Amino acid sequence: MNSFGKIFRVEIFGESHGKNVGVIVDGCPSGIALSEDDFTADLQRRRSGKLGTTPRIEADIPHIVSGVFNGKTCGTPITILFENTNTKSADYSNLQDHPRPGHADYTGMVKYGGYNDPRGGGHFSGRITLGLVAAGVIAKKIIAPVEICSELVEVGGRTDIDECIRETMQRHDSVGGLVTCSCKNVPVGLGEPFFDSLESEIAHIIFSIPAVKSIEFGSGIAAAKMYGSQHNDMIIDADGTTKTNYAGGINGGISNGNEITFRLAVKPTASISLAQETYNFASGQVEPLEIAGRHDACIAVRAPVVVECATAIVLADLSLRMQ
Amino acid sequence: MNSFGKIFRVEIFGESHGKNVGVIVDGCPSGIALSEDDFTADLQRRRSGKLGTTPRIEADIPHIVSGVFNGKTCGTPITILFENTNTKSADYSNLQDHPRPGHADYTGMVKYGGYNDPRGGGHFSGRITLGLVAAGVIAKKIIAPVEICSELVEVGGRTDIDECIRETMQRHDSVGGLVTCSCKNVPVGLGEPFFDSLESEIAHIIFSIPAVKSIEFGSGIAAAKMYGSQHNDMIIDADGTTKTNYAGGINGGISNGNEITFRLAVKPTASISLAQETYNFASGQVEPLEIAGRHDACIAVRAPVVVECATAIVLADLSLRMQ
Amino acid sequence: MNSFGKIFRVEIFGESHGKNVGVIVDGCPSGIALSEDDFTADLQRRRSGKLGTTPRIEADIPHIVSGVFNGKTCGTPITILFENTNTKSADYSNLQDHPRPGHADYTGMVKYGGYNDPRGGGHFSGRITLGLVAAGVIAKKIIAPVEICSELVEVGGRTDIDECIRETMQRHDSVGGLVTCSCKNVPVGLGEPFFDSLESEIAHIIFSIPAVKSIEFGSGIAAAKMYGSQHNDMIIDADGTTKTNYAGGINGGISNGNEITFRLAVKPTASISLAQETYNFASGQVEPLEIAGRHDACIAVRAPVVVECATAIVLADLSLRMQ
Amino acid sequence: MNSFGKIFRVEIFGESHGKNVGVIVDGCPSGIALSEDDFTADLQRRRSGKLGTTPRIEADIPHIVSGVFNGKTCGTPITILFENTNTKSADYSNLQDHPRPGHADYTGMVKYGGYNDPRGGGHFSGRITLGLVAAGVIAKKIIAPVEICSELVEVGGRTDIDECIRETMQRHDSVGGLVTCSCKNVPVGLGEPFFDSLESEIAHIIFSIPAVKSIEFGSGIAAAKMYGSQHNDMIIDADGTTKTNYAGGINGGISNGNEITFRLAVKPTASISLAQETYNFASGQVEPLEIAGRHDACIAVRAPVVVECATAIVLADLSLRMQ
Repeated sequence: MNSFGKIFRVEIFGESHGKNVGVIVDGCPSGIALSEDDFTADLQRRRSGKLGTTPRIEADIPHIVSGVFNGKTCGTPITILFENTNTKSADYSNLQDHPRPGHADYTGMVKYGGYNDPRGGGHFSGRITLGLVAAGVIAKKIIAPVEICSELVEVGGRTDIDECIRETMQRHDSVGGLVTCSCKNVPVGLGEPFFDSLESEIAHIIFSIPAVKSIEFGSGIAAAKMYGSQHNDMIIDADGTTKTNYAGGINGGISNGNEITFRLAVKPTASISLAQETYNFASGQVEPLEIAGRHDACIAVRAPVVVECATAIVLADLSLRMQ
Repeated sequence: MNSFGKIFRVEIFGESHGKNVGVIVDGCPSGIALSEDDFTADLQRRRSGKLGTTPRIEADIPHIVSGVFNGKTCGTPITILFENTNTKSADYSNLQDHPRPGHADYTGMVKYGGYNDPRGGGHFSGRITLGLVAAGVIAKKIIAPVEICSELVEVGGRTDIDECIRETMQRHDSVGGLVTCSCKNVPVGLGEPFFDSLESEIAHIIFSIPAVKSIEFGSGIAAAKMYGSQHNDMIIDADGTTKTNYAGGINGGISNGNEITFRLAVKPTASISLAQETYNFASGQVEPLEIAGRHDACIAVRAPVVVECATAIVLADLSLRMQ
Repeated sequence: MNSFGKIFRVEIFGESHGKNVGVIVDGCPSGIALSEDDFTADLQRRRSGKLGTTPRIEADIPHIVSGVFNGKTCGTPITILFENTNTKSADYSNLQDHPRPGHADYTGMVKYGGYNDPRGGGHFSGRITLGLVAAGVIAKKIIAPVEICSELVEVGGRTDIDECIRETMQRHDSVGGLVTCSCKNVPVGLGEPFFDSLESEIAHIIFSIPAVKSIEFGSGIAAAKMYGSQHNDMIIDADGTTKTNYAGGINGGISNGNEITFRLAVKPTASISLAQETYNFASGQVEPLEIAGRHDACIAVRAPVVVECATAIVLADLSLRMQ
Repeated sequence: MNSFGKIFRVEIFGESHGKNVGVIVDGCPSGIALSEDDFTADLQRRRSGKLGTTPRIEADIPHIVSGVFNGKTCGTPITILFENTNTKSADYSNLQDHPRPGHADYTGMVKYGGYNDPRGGGHFSGRITLGLVAAGVIAKKIIAPVEICSELVEVGGRTDIDECIRETMQRHDSVGGLVTCSCKNVPVGLGEPFFDSLESEIAHIIFSIPAVKSIEFGSGIAAAKMYGSQHNDMIIDADGTTKTNYAGGINGGISNGNEITFRLAVKPTASISLAQETYNFASGQVEPLEIAGRHDACIAVRAPVVVECATAIVLADLSLRMQ
C-alpha cells in the first residue's frame, strides 16, 4: 500500500527516528547515468535550514545500494537509503495519551493498534518524502526534456512571504501556503480516460504529500463560475497549441501538449509551540498540550521540490506505459 | 488502465454510441442482496431530463448478467450492462478534422492514432459514468451505515441555480458548478499514510469524473491562508470527535471518525451551440465550428450522484482492505 | 481477483447457467483489425462436439459490445459477451448437501458461504474459459509473428487417443491427458528475473485453466535427474540459438530466443456417471452419489486451444511491458 | 516488476556483489513480534556450508531498518537489509562476450542492453532469495498454525543423496534434485477460481526461484494417466477430509482443508568447472569456456527453505485477502 506507479514503481519506507528512510524504484529502464551526486541539488532544496524550517538538520546523503553499476542504471530495482542521525526521541513519549491536534497521532494509534512508531511522527513524518524526492530525480531523467517547475507563491495569503513567516514564528505559530506547478514539453497523449486520467494520477501523488489540502488544474475552482464560451480553449495551431489554457494542459484525462498547470494549498504545520487545548485519553479531559520537538513554521517552504519530484514520478510512469 | 480499486475492483467500459456501456465489479463479498431495482434511485438521479441536461434521454435499465444468483451476490465478478439506444451518430462526422475546443477530440485522436470511436464522445462520454453509478450502488451496501451526501451548491457562482441555468441556455452557452460532498459514520482507520492516503484515493476517483477541475478537503484552499493555531482541530471526546473540522475528517491520510468533507468544481460543458473559432486541421486555418448534437447546458447538475457513488467505491475498497 | 496482466489486462466473468459469460480486455493497442469472425476458428476448436466432449453444445457466438469501431480496436476496453442458452439447470439441485468428489462444490460453498451459483459449476465451469480464448485471439494478433502450438499427445498414458477415450466412455468414466505447447519466434527479453519470470507468468495462467495438475518447462521434471554438463544448452550462433533446448527457451526468467516449450497434465474430468461414494453433509454419512448432467469424458481434448490462448495473453502482456 | 502479492506485498532487490541485497514487506499487520533473531533458523538453513554448496560463505545477518518498533511490527513497510561482503568480483569479467551456457548471462545482456551487473550473476543470483526467506519468516508468523515442510527427496534421480553429490563434485559437475512441499492446517477457502487460483499463485512464486523447472500439485503429471473414478478424492468427514489426496489439497483453485502437496524439479547448477563449448560473441566462434568463481554443485540442497518461505508468502497474502 506504500507503492505508486504501474511500470515506474516507487515504494517508500522508513520512520523518522528509525535507522533508515529510503525508496525503491522498480521499472526504471537500464542505461541511465545515475550517481549519488545527481540527487544533491533536489535534496538540498528539500532540506531544512531556510527561514521557517525545522532546526533538525540532517545530512540527507543518499546511498545507492542496488540497481546501479558502473554509473548506469541496471534495469533492476534501485534502492536508495538515507540515515536518520539527528534524532531526539525523548520528545515524543506522551503522544498516545494526549494526541496532537491536526496530527496523525490519533488516527495512527487507532489504525495500527498502538504499534506504530510515534517518535518524530514515525512513518507519518514529512521526512519520508526524502524517498519521493530521490525517486523524482530519477524520473526527471526519464522524462527529459520535460521541465517541471513548482513555486511557493503565497504564505498566509500574502506574497511577502518571508515577512509573513517571520511574524508567524514570533507568535510561535505556523502558517499555510500556496504552491503552483507547471510542466513544459509534455508530449500529447499521457493519461487515460477515467480512472487513470492525468489529473487522477497527479492528484493521487500530490495528496500523498503530507499537509496538502487542495489541488486545482488549470482554471481550477474558478471553473465553477465560468461559461463554456469562456472556458473552452481555442486551438490555434497544428501542434495543438491553445490560445488560453483553462484546461491546464489536459483534455479528457490526457495531456494536450500545452503546459500542464496546477496549484495546491499546504496547510499550516500541525506542530506548534503554542499551548493547545485538546483531549487527553488518559485523563478523559480536554487539557492543554505543549508540543516540544523541532518543527517547521511553514512546511510549504519545503513543498515545491517534493511537488516537482512527485509530478515527475507520474509523468515517468505514464510515459513508460505509452506504446 | 480502466480499473480502480485493490480489493473492490471496478472496471468500466463502453462507448457512447456503441452497443453497451457497463461495469464489472470484482471482489464484492458474497451474500449481499442485489437486484436490478436497487439501481433505480441512483440511476434516476443521474439521468437527464432535469433543467440543464441533454435532451438525449436513455432508459438506463441495468442488466445484471453475472455474479448474482437468487437475489444475492455470489462473490464472483458482477457484470452490469446498459444499452445505448437513443443515438444520433450522424452528428459527429467531422470532429477529427475540426476538434471541439475543451473536448477530448484532439487528445483522443492523437493518443489512439485516430482509431477511437468519435460518436458521441465515444469512451470519453459522460455516459460511461453509468458504470460508476452502478458500482457505487453496490459499494454503498458494503459500507453501510456510512452515509454519503453530495449536492450542487452553486452554478456560475450563484445560488439561484435554476435561474442561472435558464439564462445560460437562452444564450446557447454552458456553465460550471460547485459540488460538495460529505460522508458520515466513516470508521476511524480508512486510508494509508502517503500513496494510498484517503485524500489520494478520493481525489483519484473524483478526477476520473469528466469535467472536474479541483478538489478540496476540509479547509481546502483556505488552508493556505491559515495559521496552525486556527487550523488544528481540537479533539473533544474519547471517540475522536473534533470541535472544528478543518481536516475534513482525515489526518495523516487516514479517516479520523469525523465527517469527511470535500468539494469540487465542475467546468462548463465543452459542447455548446454557440459557434466557436478553433483550428481546422484539414484546412490549416482557425475557423468557426458549430456543434450539433445534444448536450447538457450544466453537466454539474448530474454530478452529485456520480460523486457519491465514486466516493462509495473508494470507501468500500478501503474498508475491505482493512484488517 | 479475476484479472490477469499488467498492461494487456484480461478480466473474465460469468456463470455456466447465467445470462452471459465473457471477457474484458483492457490495454489493447488501438488500430488492430478485429471482427467477430476472427474468433471463429479458435472458438470452434474449443467447442464440444468432438469425441470425448460434452453433449451440451453452445453456439458460442462472440458479441463485441465495446472497444471496436469500424473494424479496428479503439484502444479502449474491449468487451466480448457470449450467451448461455443450452442450459439444464435442474440437474444441480443437491450439490451443496452432497458435493461431488474432485469438484469445487465443497470449496466454493465454504468460500462463498453458500451464495455461489451451483448450476453447471457456476463460475467454476470450464465454460468461463471462453473468455480466455477470446482474449487470446486478440493477444495472438499483438504478438505476431509469434506462433504458439499446443497439442494433446497422450490420453490415459496412451497415444491411441481416440481409442482410449472410447473405452473410457464405455465404462462411464473419464480420463486425463498430457498436453504440450511450444512458442516460436519469441523475441529475446520477455520476462523478468524472479517474480515476473516468464515461467512464473506462464505457470500462473496455465494453472488458471481448470483441471491442470502440473507444468514443466524444457527438461522439466527430468532436470532433477540430470547433470549440469548434460543440461546446459550450448549457444551455437550469434542470435542465441542453442544446440539443445533443455532450458525450454528461458534463462533467468527471460526468453532466450529459442522455442519456448512446456507441457502439462490435465486430470480426468471430475464429473463421471459412475456412482461414487462420498460424504453427504445433510445425512452425515458417506453415501453413493450419481451425477446427472452432461460432461466431457476427457476434458484434455478441449485444452490445447485454451493453453495456446492463455500463453498468448502472457506473451502479449510481457511484450507490451518491454521498453 | 519485482514485487509479489496484493495485500502482503514483497519486493526483493540487490545484486550479488553490490552493497546490499534485501527485501521490503508491505502490508504486514501491526503488532507481530519480530526481531532479527527470528530469521536465524531459516537463514541458517539457506546458507551455504553443507555438502554440495558454494564455498562462498556470507554471514547473512539481517538488519531491520524500518517497520519494527519495540520488537513489534508497526504496520508500515518492513525493510530488511543484508550485506554482501565475501565477493570476488574479478571472476566475472568476460561473461558478456562469452556467456555461460544455461545461465542468464545472454538474456540479461540483451534485456538490459549490457547494463546489468554481471558480477556474481548480479540480480540473477540465487543470493537474492535471501529476501524471499526473510519475507517468508514474517509470513509464517501470519499464517500460524499453518505448517509448511519442504524436503529434498532425490538428487540425480537417487535417494542416497550425499553420495550422489560427492560423486558429482569429484567429476567437477553439478546435479539436479527433486523437492517436495506440504502445508498442513491450511483453512478451507484460500485462492480464487481462475487467475488467482492457489495453484497459480504458488506456481508463480515457485518459478521465481532460480533453477526450478517443474511443479506438480497432488497427483501431478500422473493425473494425465488416471481415470476419474481413481482420481476423485472421496470426502469422508464433515470437515472436508478426503480419503485420498490426488487433488493436493486444492479444488477449483481453492484450498479444501486437506494437506496441500506439491513437488518441483530443480535443475543442476549452470555453473560448472568442467570446460564447456559455447559461442563467443567476440570471436564469432564456438569455443571452450572455463568458469571460475565459486558455485553450488547441487543448488537443490538449498532450495527447501526457499520453497517453504515462498509458499508462506502466498498463503499469507491469500489469508489477508480473505474476508
